[in-house]
Amino acid sequence: MFKAVIGAEKLKDSVESISALVDEAKFRITPDGISVKAVDPANVAMVSFELSKDAFDSFEASEGELGIDLAKLSSIMDMADKTDNIELELDENTHKLVIQMRGLSYTMSLLDPSSIRKEPKVPTLDLPVRIVIRGEDIKRAVKAAEKVSDYMYMGANGDIFFMEAEGDTDKVRVEMAKDQLIDMSSGDARSLFSLDYLTDISKVAGKAPEVTIDIGKDYPLKLKIKIADGHGEVSYMLAPRVETE
Amino acid sequence: MFKAVIGAEKLKDSVESISALVDEAKFRITPDGISVKAVDPANVAMVSFELSKDAFDSFEASEGELGIDLAKLSSIMDMADKTDNIELELDENTHKLVIQMRGLSYTMSLLDPSSIRKEPKVPTLDLPVRIVIRGEDIKRAVKAAEKVSDYMYMGANGDIFFMEAEGDTDKVRVEMAKDQLIDMSSGDARSLFSLDYLTDISKVAGKAPEVTIDIGKDYPLKLKIKIADGHGEVSYMLAPRVETE
Amino acid sequence: MFKAVIGAEKLKDSVESISALVDEAKFRITPDGISVKAVDPANVAMVSFELSKDAFDSFEASEGELGIDLAKLSSIMDMADKTDNIELELDENTHKLVIQMRGLSYTMSLLDPSSIRKEPKVPTLDLPVRIVIRGEDIKRAVKAAEKVSDYMYMGANGDIFFMEAEGDTDKVRVEMAKDQLIDMSSGDARSLFSLDYLTDISKVAGKAPEVTIDIGKDYPLKLKIKIADGHGEVSYMLAPRVETE
Repeated sequence: MFKAVIGAEKLKDSVESISALVDEAKFRITPDGISVKAVDPANVAMVSFELSKDAFDSFEASEGELGIDLAKLSSIMDMADKTDNIELELDENTHKLVIQMRGLSYTMSLLDPSSIRKEPKVPTLDLPVRIVIRGEDIKRAVKAAEKVSDYMYMGANGDIFFMEAEGDTDKVRVEMAKDQLIDMSSGDARSLFSLDYLTDISKVAGKAPEVTIDIGKDYPLKLKIKIADGHGEVSYMLAPRVETE
Repeated sequence: MFKAVIGAEKLKDSVESISALVDEAKFRITPDGISVKAVDPANVAMVSFELSKDAFDSFEASEGELGIDLAKLSSIMDMADKTDNIELELDENTHKLVIQMRGLSYTMSLLDPSSIRKEPKVPTLDLPVRIVIRGEDIKRAVKAAEKVSDYMYMGANGDIFFMEAEGDTDKVRVEMAKDQLIDMSSGDARSLFSLDYLTDISKVAGKAPEVTIDIGKDYPLKLKIKIADGHGEVSYMLAPRVETE
Repeated sequence: MFKAVIGAEKLKDSVESISALVDEAKFRITPDGISVKAVDPANVAMVSFELSKDAFDSFEASEGELGIDLAKLSSIMDMADKTDNIELELDENTHKLVIQMRGLSYTMSLLDPSSIRKEPKVPTLDLPVRIVIRGEDIKRAVKAAEKVSDYMYMGANGDIFFMEAEGDTDKVRVEMAKDQLIDMSSGDARSLFSLDYLTDISKVAGKAPEVTIDIGKDYPLKLKIKIADGHGEVSYMLAPRVETE
């Protein structure tokens, strides 16, 4: 069984953070909350999402799995006002999810969880440099980088964090010293990432006051954001692009 | 002759309420005001519009008929500020309508009234259930229904008014009890309507604080809105879709 | 050498005023400021732009020429906030322009000035009627004229300034008496201009509190705007369209 009430904005943000990488996902339900692990179709990026039952106004659930069409759920959430409360309830007979908001009831069919791409194993990485940065600073650099290239470097030189993109003729570089960041563990790092993915991720990250980024030398990027007033977390892992020259 | 002055917003709202169903219309002018009756090209919906001379700042007219291209008049009105006064005057020599607003004068050619689809006879219907509802509540239900189907039921079960749409897999239902409505005469009713028409009508209805709806069992819908601070009224009649199964 | 700092909004407005007519331009740099003269590809309109070094927070330059891709510079400026300061510096070694704003550095390649259309000689014209008008009044008339035609008359009858456009069936006319204008030197004038050009120019003029327009009988139009708090000026010259009938 699954029955829960949550603020519309929290649910909206949650759905968006997952749909940055995938169109459909398996929501794993336990008595303690909801979690999602998903990998994008090209196996380049992973999202790991956790929302504690404390993020909900009420939450009752037994173990289960819900196959969710994220675009559809997102379009349903567009009908809600930010301050609405959303009631979610699994109808055990029809195996559909009933979503209620201010007198409007939407009965959404679920996807067969076995038809959804298998959950990835999230590797443990020990990355040398950690940056804590305002989300809007990431978003701005990604938007600038898009003007000149399809790829962007993220790296560190000692106490300097940089994001850089180079096109055929033009170049963009954002440098931030430790004191312009929220926090930084200094070190050396430099990896190249696809802007396709960074753009989608930075749309989510751009709204967060605080984003934690771990980077290395030609290593994956880890990017972590707190959601739902600290009662949840979404983290992305993005494979580096190997430079060919 | 026809010469009148009216607030831009009133004229804008009037034009929009008619153009929800038709692209061109015959405006019937009398010394007492303006009226329009029109039926959509597929003969599914009718609009009946009345604007008393009291809605105007000044109004002088003899009996007459003006063939109006509604899209053009609407695009001219887009140039006006809400608070502008619009002067309308029929040039008897050229038979064109001169529209003036803050020093700008637009001379608009009229359509030949005989080229416009004949005015419908509006049937008298005695419908069992009347609901008075906030316009935004209609609009919200219609937008939700569009996500799952091309048709929407409107109906009543005793003291409950409902709007419902069912797609292949998903379902939307809005229920409102008598005390959530502005007013309701209880009863039983249920008819199916095309969302194509309801969408256009609900764009107009959505702005009205109060919308009066009459429904029955597989009967047409009547939807009535006051306009121009009560000095006018627009009502729509929409044929039900017969269920085939 | 060229090194300067300027408020983002001033630079944005400057770039837009030139790109109303051309996609690329030669920026002539002197120790006293920047100037641009350019003619549109069809040789119908000219722009003459001047920005004094007083418009800059700091300005150091020797004589030189920069070939600028205006669409690219405009898209870079879109990343700046209105209140940002923009640093511009010519890298003498690479001959690229380094544009810096809040820690973000964009290295923009320059165009070969010899590949850019030659600077026009701006003719001296003695036009009989001068109107000083609010920019928004021009913009409104141009938008209205577009609804009926591809051309618009600008003219004067004594103390009346008019803008007029006539289509196959409809007509638009804006008349402004001397006392509705900021200033006017009375006279007689009437020339026809292409709305293609007036539309682009009126987007720039529309933001100016004060626009000076000189007109004659079948003569070019001169339109002048102060920019950068009076430390610069942009003027357009637009050839009349000869009436054929």
